[in-house]
Amino acid sequence: MATITVLGAGMMGSALCVPLVDAGHEVRLVGTHLDAEIISELMKSSTHPKLKLELPRAIRAYRVEELAEALRGADVIGLGVSSAGVAWAAERLREHPIGERPILMITKGLELGGGELRILPDVLAEKLGGGVAPVAVAGPCIAGELARRVESCVLFTGRDAETARALASLARTEYYHVFTSEDAVGVEVCAALKNAYAMGIGFAAGLHERAGGSPGSVAMHNHEAGVFAQSVLEMQRVVALAGGNPASASSLAGVGDLDVTCSGGRTGRFGRWLGLGVGSSEAIARMEGATLECLDILEVMRAALSAYEARGKLQARELPLLRHLMNVALDDEPVRVPFGAFFGGE
Amino acid sequence: MATITVLGAGMMGSALCVPLVDAGHEVRLVGTHLDAEIISELMKSSTHPKLKLELPRAIRAYRVEELAEALRGADVIGLGVSSAGVAWAAERLREHPIGERPILMITKGLELGGGELRILPDVLAEKLGGGVAPVAVAGPCIAGELARRVESCVLFTGRDAETARALASLARTEYYHVFTSEDAVGVEVCAALKNAYAMGIGFAAGLHERAGGSPGSVAMHNHEAGVFAQSVLEMQRVVALAGGNPASASSLAGVGDLDVTCSGGRTGRFGRWLGLGVGSSEAIARMEGATLECLDILEVMRAALSAYEARGKLQARELPLLRHLMNVALDDEPVRVPFGAFFGGE
Repeated sequence: MATITVLGAGMMGSALCVPLVDAGHEVRLVGTHLDAEIISELMKSSTHPKLKLELPRAIRAYRVEELAEALRGADVIGLGVSSAGVAWAAERLREHPIGERPILMITKGLELGGGELRILPDVLAEKLGGGVAPVAVAGPCIAGELARRVESCVLFTGRDAETARALASLARTEYYHVFTSEDAVGVEVCAALKNAYAMGIGFAAGLHERAGGSPGSVAMHNHEAGVFAQSVLEMQRVVALAGGNPASASSLAGVGDLDVTCSGGRTGRFGRWLGLGVGSSEAIARMEGATLECLDILEVMRAALSAYEARGKLQARELPLLRHLMNVALDDEPVRVPFGAFFGGE
Repeated sequence: MATITVLGAGMMGSALCVPLVDAGHEVRLVGTHLDAEIISELMKSSTHPKLKLELPRAIRAYRVEELAEALRGADVIGLGVSSAGVAWAAERLREHPIGERPILMITKGLELGGGELRILPDVLAEKLGGGVAPVAVAGPCIAGELARRVESCVLFTGRDAETARALASLARTEYYHVFTSEDAVGVEVCAALKNAYAMGIGFAAGLHERAGGSPGSVAMHNHEAGVFAQSVLEMQRVVALAGGNPASASSLAGVGDLDVTCSGGRTGRFGRWLGLGVGSSEAIARMEGATLECLDILEVMRAALSAYEARGKLQARELPLLRHLMNVALDDEPVRVPFGAFFGGE
């Protein structure tokens, strides 16, 4: 049994606590300054207002002001913040030195540094200094389902394979199936890109509705599946550019997470609005403040593609779908998927 | 402009006629002995009773007795029969010699011969004798959507790459995006396997319902996506066993067709019944006579796995999902997806 302190009480950080408690660990869940209401509710009734679920009472909730106490004696630190919160979290963890204790992060995203794509475990390691190589969680896992103990398959990966395997052993339960990958770059690139591509897969639902169609088995699934298949090929290409193993795109972090993201929620709904033709500003407005990771990753990828092209590592005709997604979501161009340029061209 | 005669007026054979007519060809659609009612309806009103749609009037319908007339002057033969109809179709075509005229077939399936998986274009070529190398159509394409001119991406593939490219040029329209692949084995193996795997992806919906859940973004999508990702990895493995290129599993015929098959209909519905726990005989009964290609392919694969294992080309621990699908659908075992054995094992 270990003591595990998770920082960030959003949906996924909180859901992760369920298998950790079920695996027999002492689990402490610390809210950020944005999670005050969640923590109050958890302290009062163990109910998570966003997950709409009573969590196991053994999960002990802490306010951000109690971070030092929550970290005392912790064997593992879990990081449940969003990508925007990584810098904040690193500062907090520097104020409360955690030494070489392993970090398990669920945060997904990419940054551009020196013209190269950088994965968040590397970004965090640099911010923390010291010798910690964070382990990242990827793969198809909707938080609301994990918290309800739906069987879920995830990947733990990191620069230190030994630590990734050790944390996987700690976290595994009969419903939380944890596999490990030594391809941290490939897995993390897919985990970030899937939000952008899931948006594009969502176009079909909007286009179909706009054409007056109703949902059903005859809709625009052919359109959707063509985009899905091209997404996997483009993920392979971006993974290769970033120095990872393209095979990761065909597994849990690629096709698996792409599939679940299309079923699971906001990114697909945003894509549907775009397919309906309301334009990107209006589509953002209709999402009523929901976090749209796809926009962040498209911004990063736009800069990255320029950098790779400038160095001759990428041709302008490559990644036609990703470029279209940027044009639609960032430049407000209409949806007109360039199928003819897919799969190596007609 | 070419004259194209399609034999088989089921949903996909008939749907294929729509882009062919739109591409400017003379298109003749010949019903088999099972399609008599469809042909009558097409002759009367151009309406296809199964597609529930009026087809372009330029498509000329023929009864099976008029096959000789329909073949006269045809430049290309389309084959729209089911896998069970391939032998019948080959006999008909031997009665009306077609010489070296190219054949485009939409039939999907695999056979076992001499302990090796054989793709249907090879089976048909052998039955026909002569030098014809049939071109096969694969990829994510629901017939009802193609007939309604939904943008669709498909692959044409065959042992003769030149002919595949020539037919792709003939068939392409602004909504029917035809790509070519030189990996006939890989593409055709994926096209056949996807029915079996889509059944397994459908389990989650039934399991969720059985547990009292309602459909929505929090359901058992994590379960579903874990099965989806493992399906792609297992397709890669079977493609390799059959001598194809595993990369085909990451493109249109693999992930693309798997995605659309899960959205599109009967195979997923059958998987849902199995997930609900009614048992395979009852699940088959509830499908009310719908063709279940998944059962045929699982039978073929069971024999194929034994043959590969006997020759030491496959280990008993490989393909754990496919083995579970066989146990559930063919042996009436309960659904209990062996996630722990996936992705190389926990």
